[in-house]
Amino acid sequence: MTAKIARFLEEVRPVTPCVVVDLDVVRDNYQGLRRWLPLAEVYYAVKANPAPEIVRMLVGEGSRFDVASRGEIDLCLSNGAPAERISFGNTIKKQSDIAYAYAKGVRLYAFDSEAELEKLAEAAPGSRVFCRILMTCDGAEWPLSRKFGCEIDMAKDLLVKARDLGLDPYGVSFHVGSQQTDLKQWDIAVGKAAMLFSALDAAGIDLRMVNLGGGFPARYRKEVDGIERYAEAVMDAMTKHFGNNIPAMIIEPGRSLVGDAGILETEVVLISRKGYDDDVRWVYLDVGKFGGLAETMDEAIKYRIVTTRDGDDTAPVVLAGPTCDSADILYEKAGYEMPVSLKVGDKVRILSTGAYTTSYSAVNFNGFEPLKAYFI
Amino acid sequence: MTAKIARFLEEVRPVTPCVVVDLDVVRDNYQGLRRWLPLAEVYYAVKANPAPEIVRMLVGEGSRFDVASRGEIDLCLSNGAPAERISFGNTIKKQSDIAYAYAKGVRLYAFDSEAELEKLAEAAPGSRVFCRILMTCDGAEWPLSRKFGCEIDMAKDLLVKARDLGLDPYGVSFHVGSQQTDLKQWDIAVGKAAMLFSALDAAGIDLRMVNLGGGFPARYRKEVDGIERYAEAVMDAMTKHFGNNIPAMIIEPGRSLVGDAGILETEVVLISRKGYDDDVRWVYLDVGKFGGLAETMDEAIKYRIVTTRDGDDTAPVVLAGPTCDSADILYEKAGYEMPVSLKVGDKVRILSTGAYTTSYSAVNFNGFEPLKAYFI
Repeated sequence: MTAKIARFLEEVRPVTPCVVVDLDVVRDNYQGLRRWLPLAEVYYAVKANPAPEIVRMLVGEGSRFDVASRGEIDLCLSNGAPAERISFGNTIKKQSDIAYAYAKGVRLYAFDSEAELEKLAEAAPGSRVFCRILMTCDGAEWPLSRKFGCEIDMAKDLLVKARDLGLDPYGVSFHVGSQQTDLKQWDIAVGKAAMLFSALDAAGIDLRMVNLGGGFPARYRKEVDGIERYAEAVMDAMTKHFGNNIPAMIIEPGRSLVGDAGILETEVVLISRKGYDDDVRWVYLDVGKFGGLAETMDEAIKYRIVTTRDGDDTAPVVLAGPTCDSADILYEKAGYEMPVSLKVGDKVRILSTGAYTTSYSAVNFNGFEPLKAYFI
Repeated sequence: MTAKIARFLEEVRPVTPCVVVDLDVVRDNYQGLRRWLPLAEVYYAVKANPAPEIVRMLVGEGSRFDVASRGEIDLCLSNGAPAERISFGNTIKKQSDIAYAYAKGVRLYAFDSEAELEKLAEAAPGSRVFCRILMTCDGAEWPLSRKFGCEIDMAKDLLVKARDLGLDPYGVSFHVGSQQTDLKQWDIAVGKAAMLFSALDAAGIDLRMVNLGGGFPARYRKEVDGIERYAEAVMDAMTKHFGNNIPAMIIEPGRSLVGDAGILETEVVLISRKGYDDDVRWVYLDVGKFGGLAETMDEAIKYRIVTTRDGDDTAPVVLAGPTCDSADILYEKAGYEMPVSLKVGDKVRILSTGAYTTSYSAVNFNGFEPLKAYFI
């Protein structure tokens, strides 16, 4: 909670629910990453928070951009990002969208399958491509499925095929899992990448880049290491596996740049019990799972929550959203407590909500407006 | 799949993904419910699909409307629904929204807690109120939590309190769970309601209404009984528990009116395997969990899926959406198969997607537009 956000909430008293993002915190986080990982090019994962205000500020800082769709390409271009600073990082692209990106000047693309490579060869000839490899990723708080990446032996064949199709086999990417708190995972991942470099070298292909993805954390309920510990883990792994022949490095931070920069201001709509024997209060907020807090799915991301009555005695609560959907419950098992003195109408602040909130918000579910956001 | 939708898709060839809803099917479903449950007043659960086209058509049919928010009240009023045909069915309401509804003429409200009753007494004096009771609800496909309703002894006290606060204790409501396929649940629920009628009669309060909620199904992968079987189960339960002194009945169908009326047209973006030993193909569509298919959460709702190559040999698939979110997987465990001959670019149709799709769609996640819809 920055002084700037506190002042904004105090003076403007915006209608709730809303997210307020402090752009200075985003800038500080960006500069911190540059300082701690000077060898890495930073591609902001636009999907974390696709606000034009954030993109414009990061363009000014010299950032690059990792985009997931044609819509995000347009967003970056129209806010001043040159096409050569954009990476089309989604491994699932329509060929028409690849052609669109190529026509706009984008020359860096992710893939993890033969079919995608064929689309790229046709619609983005000669472009730099990198292959995403599968990771198992213990320790990540937001679950990483097998959705992205392929096995390493397949990656090798695909990178050879990329060359044969006239593309530039530029490197390899992986993702250790969003909100990854087990630093050993970097060593495992970079080790796999280095193996691939050797295997392709033997096939006459000179990979030049490792894309380390995202995974740097924001600060939710659990304490996390500072960014410098992550940077150290990454550089230790790179040095260990690549010696003094370190390739170009790309990182794609999203959550770690914008997560902690945002506060969600919400209001208590109702406090109730379900029966006389119930020892748990239900606290209903004016924001829920379909209004921006999608990452509470399966109670995965556990936000820190602040009330105006902190310090008073607390008791267990179930936290839920305002919609008529019975699945719109934020926390039932995670053991949240709130002050016994909490009242209907109280303001409640959900911390570190700058990432993966506004853009997840449903367009009009139950007739509620999408989550409003302010960038200050 | 109606002939009208088939013709529309053939002639217009809309950009995918999109939902096409046949309003004639909605009308037929509405009329079917009226025919099979002539004693019940139908309040369309607007949240299932808040399209103005649907609201306007149902206004013409004489339907009433169950709304969840101020936004849905405005939607109904601006499309011709008189305020006296609106029920504010959400048990979680801001007092300012209750006052808004009251000012617009809404006089029927749900509640399930003391705090809500106090808001209603203040902001909607004299209104009819009904208390929602908790159900356990085995057999529902879309999970029903304890989020709504209270225990029956608390409900009794609250209805007495409603009278004492100057409200009109009108009746009781319950919900057996969306997509409820166990018809016995109606008997259990109506039995509870009848108990409450007796208990309140002894306290000098004459309840006059049972709100049976929704729960009538749409047709997903599993066969379901026709609406007439549901109507029979409901009327059997009412007659068994209320004899020939049947109170006013309200039903709040959403899914059963609009679910089967919609088809989601989507396109295969990518087909791949993760490794050479993988016997499962990953099929990525241009729509996913954050683009309108939120009800695939935990693989709860299992849609029927049609391809242009049905009849060819099939093999297991994982079905996933197009975003960079690793949780954006539709079906991994539900045992879906698709034709081996399926190709990138093929159109795929997801059936019974008229309910809980468009309005769940994320506002701009990963830069993808919200799900487009056509009403024909």
